[in-house]
Amino acid sequence: MNYQPRPDDIRCLLGTVLGATPRLRDLPPFAEFDDALQSQVLEEAGRFVAEAVAPLNRVGDEAGCRFEGGEVHTPPGFREAYRGLVEGGWLALSAAPEDGGQGLPAVLEAVLFEWLSAANHGLTMAPGLLHGAYECLRHHGSDELKQRYLPKIASGEWLATMCLTEAHAGSDLGLVRTRAVPQADGSYRVSGSKIFISGGEHDLTPNIVHLVLCRLPDAPPGPKGLSLVLVPKRMPEGRRNAVHCERIEEKMGLHGSPTCVMRFDEATGWLVGEPSRGLAAMFVMMNAARLHVALQGIGLLDAAWQKAAAYAHERRQMRAPGAPPPSRGSAAADLIEEHPAVRRVLDTQRAWIDGMRLLAYRSALQLDVARHDADPARRQHAERWCALVTPVLKAACTQQAFDGASACLQVFGGHGYVREWGIEQVLRDARVTMIYEGTNEIQAIDLVTRKLLPDGGAAMAAVLIELRDELDAAREQDADVQRRFAQLRYLGTTLAMAAQRDAALPFEVADDYLRCVALALLAWAWARIAQLAPDDARWHAPGAAFQRFVLPEFEMRLGMVKRACDAVLAPGAT
Amino acid sequence: MNYQPRPDDIRCLLGTVLGATPRLRDLPPFAEFDDALQSQVLEEAGRFVAEAVAPLNRVGDEAGCRFEGGEVHTPPGFREAYRGLVEGGWLALSAAPEDGGQGLPAVLEAVLFEWLSAANHGLTMAPGLLHGAYECLRHHGSDELKQRYLPKIASGEWLATMCLTEAHAGSDLGLVRTRAVPQADGSYRVSGSKIFISGGEHDLTPNIVHLVLCRLPDAPPGPKGLSLVLVPKRMPEGRRNAVHCERIEEKMGLHGSPTCVMRFDEATGWLVGEPSRGLAAMFVMMNAARLHVALQGIGLLDAAWQKAAAYAHERRQMRAPGAPPPSRGSAAADLIEEHPAVRRVLDTQRAWIDGMRLLAYRSALQLDVARHDADPARRQHAERWCALVTPVLKAACTQQAFDGASACLQVFGGHGYVREWGIEQVLRDARVTMIYEGTNEIQAIDLVTRKLLPDGGAAMAAVLIELRDELDAAREQDADVQRRFAQLRYLGTTLAMAAQRDAALPFEVADDYLRCVALALLAWAWARIAQLAPDDARWHAPGAAFQRFVLPEFEMRLGMVKRACDAVLAPGAT
Repeated sequence: MNYQPRPDDIRCLLGTVLGATPRLRDLPPFAEFDDALQSQVLEEAGRFVAEAVAPLNRVGDEAGCRFEGGEVHTPPGFREAYRGLVEGGWLALSAAPEDGGQGLPAVLEAVLFEWLSAANHGLTMAPGLLHGAYECLRHHGSDELKQRYLPKIASGEWLATMCLTEAHAGSDLGLVRTRAVPQADGSYRVSGSKIFISGGEHDLTPNIVHLVLCRLPDAPPGPKGLSLVLVPKRMPEGRRNAVHCERIEEKMGLHGSPTCVMRFDEATGWLVGEPSRGLAAMFVMMNAARLHVALQGIGLLDAAWQKAAAYAHERRQMRAPGAPPPSRGSAAADLIEEHPAVRRVLDTQRAWIDGMRLLAYRSALQLDVARHDADPARRQHAERWCALVTPVLKAACTQQAFDGASACLQVFGGHGYVREWGIEQVLRDARVTMIYEGTNEIQAIDLVTRKLLPDGGAAMAAVLIELRDELDAAREQDADVQRRFAQLRYLGTTLAMAAQRDAALPFEVADDYLRCVALALLAWAWARIAQLAPDDARWHAPGAAFQRFVLPEFEMRLGMVKRACDAVLAPGAT
Repeated sequence: MNYQPRPDDIRCLLGTVLGATPRLRDLPPFAEFDDALQSQVLEEAGRFVAEAVAPLNRVGDEAGCRFEGGEVHTPPGFREAYRGLVEGGWLALSAAPEDGGQGLPAVLEAVLFEWLSAANHGLTMAPGLLHGAYECLRHHGSDELKQRYLPKIASGEWLATMCLTEAHAGSDLGLVRTRAVPQADGSYRVSGSKIFISGGEHDLTPNIVHLVLCRLPDAPPGPKGLSLVLVPKRMPEGRRNAVHCERIEEKMGLHGSPTCVMRFDEATGWLVGEPSRGLAAMFVMMNAARLHVALQGIGLLDAAWQKAAAYAHERRQMRAPGAPPPSRGSAAADLIEEHPAVRRVLDTQRAWIDGMRLLAYRSALQLDVARHDADPARRQHAERWCALVTPVLKAACTQQAFDGASACLQVFGGHGYVREWGIEQVLRDARVTMIYEGTNEIQAIDLVTRKLLPDGGAAMAAVLIELRDELDAAREQDADVQRRFAQLRYLGTTLAMAAQRDAALPFEVADDYLRCVALALLAWAWARIAQLAPDDARWHAPGAAFQRFVLPEFEMRLGMVKRACDAVLAPGAT
């Protein structure tokens, strides 16, 4: 079965639980935004995703991308589907109207990209970096570059890449060696080799705009010597630039997206932003890009869930303990969805999906606030939220995409391991989301060493207090969440103290700390859903599964971090 | 890099920690067994695995098996490697000398199959069911069948399959429909279709012996109406029998092993054991087969670990916090093995591998005792151990093979997701071990509903007491394990009471209970290793990682089961 977007679920989370519309109407560009418009966008987006994108997921995996004579051919049907994305204006959903965009909120774009990823992760990779390139160029590009490239990138008429990684420089971008030499005409000559470039070459658009991290002559070593240069595949006058795809990788999955090795042979490019400020220019788009990866994780998990739920609703094996006789009819066995072990998988993954959705959509709303609020303090406040919560969501959502897809595969028994049902593709595709845009371990280290420790946990505490204040202490579930938030704030202080004594400690416990935060935030999300969502099994069952099967990990991780800190802080410890 | 067996590690666990040799010498067939013989077998096996088997792992994945005109062609080199296995006598290692076997202990065969699986899971599938077929036929076959098939199966000259699953009958074998109709000459005509038959057809041996679960006319419905029939690919006089491979599955991994759909069109066969006692005949081999799957899990995880450790020992990225300056030399970055996040992965997976090895080898020793001890009470005692511990190991080892291979893949960053390094193959291959020979959920349900609850936890308590008595309560680590065993015994009693009130409860918490047992057994294993293994970093580092990063899950799972029981047992609960 192909992925089927369910706008009703989204409406409940965005509208009933998050109250997105009134929040958005406070922002000047969305003063006219209303529920009717939101519904219209969701319905149309859902239809497009289901009809034009989802049916190509399997051919993307099986036919994959072909590399022939320096050219990359995308899987059959991808060009037409991509054209549909551009022509429907879907890629320009949140771009500014002055750049040809539709000027809609980022939160709707978030839903669209979650659905697109669920329906066809491979195809969705193509425009995945478009929005980041748009923001980067919009904020740091010269007027001439903006004029030439911004509208084409806003619409998706031309696609864009981020060329960061080199063979020896992965998580450590400070080791990048690609050189850019200034020319008399103000352009640069770029030389070097980049790997893992998603969409470095393809047949979807006539031009491809590469944003290349490189080093100018005499730049200092390390990350502070990196500059960003825009290198187009085709020069403004139409001839091919000296940038070439050398090969595409054979990967575990995501075969619908070409992962390219790119060679720059004195290719012509133009500086974006200041010399040696390339990382700052790239980081503009980092929070948005990482949130998009989190949304991929949510989408992929929902795709796995839909498959498993459909299978469990058809497949009969054995008698289910405690199943009511009427459900059995004359069949020799019960539906596996009635078996407790299967029920547990389905409800638990549903709990992750809905809880993570609520948090991701709230983050996307904060992106809207950060971009558009008239009040600088509220913008800064929203930025703080994004800085702290984005790495948590990126790591937690993608880890769960993989673990949860594996749990859903298990529902199929042996049928899950064969291609036929498509569930093993989800698992293979999902695995990469734990790696790209910064591995999940890098997210955890970023959270702890750059976001938590520098201010001794103050910013994290502020986020937790903001969320706590939305809870109702008279409700038992809410009070439980408040208690966890308090533990987490205390843990942040403890960790900050322990880090003073042992520089390696934060790196050792970063993953556990991130999980603690993720689970506490999910507990908050489920407290909100329990209070506000409709009073029915659709929301009760995953809510109960969350409390029973997901939340116990919070205490375990908390204890792991706490014991590590205590060992360092104990009298006599060095 | 290809997998490299390390006999020293095995010698430490088998000899120093488990004291296998004196235990084995108590058994009549192994009275002459000694460390020198053990070492010789390990060294020769290690060399054979490294030289003849491991180098074919990648071609097995990439070329895979081809299906053409009803024939299956195994990957290039597999026939020669398989011939080497037969000619070296490796497949007859633990078979009885009277059947042409080498009469060596099952525990050495366990090590061999762990290594074979680590080196080449696909190729190892071919003889994977041989031993089970041998035991089944040896115990239940008629003299005529034994004479005709047993020596060929003992040596591996002919391969064997187990034909259980049908499209609609997976975990629920009671739904099997394949029919066997008795003929005047004492043979049976078998008709039906079987799926997921590993090695159902191939070019490795001239004959293939199928053990087919089927139903005789007038057999009662359900699992108690199943019989076992031996159906050879080639009849004794040489002509083809009416059994055909219809297709092979396209799978997520394990491409070196053909997974066949088999059609029986009035194929000729002979009954093995009594009519309608087919499941009993099959279950003879179940504990051995499941232990072998556990060993596959251990082997695959060790293969993943070796790859990640080698990569982490070469790859440099960033400065490691707290790394001593001398290790840096003039390089611009530190080895990633010095980074805490990577160190944690490597030590944690090592902890799983070594701990699970100790438990699996102890189980294999119990198989030897169950088969060969002169004292029926000791045989029964060993059988009880196997019945209780085997499902725990099958589920825990294979779950960790997958989770741990994923953690090892993460060490490679983006390089882990591409084929080049071979780590993604391990992950894909490992996934199936969680499914076959009974899914891990079935193992948990078997453990709880068939092994734990029927006697109210008495047999489990006996196993725990036996292990407890080997510990030294004066050692802090040992006392901690004893405390956990006591909690586990209490939990068993609680669960037995709660199950009286709620029939669905044991099925809901089975996975958590199994994890509790697995973690407590691992804690026992690491207490033994800590006391007996050499006092060096090779054993200290994983031991410390076990306490810090693995064992905390015990309390979490214990709490989950306990709360579920408490809810059922609370006054007023129904």
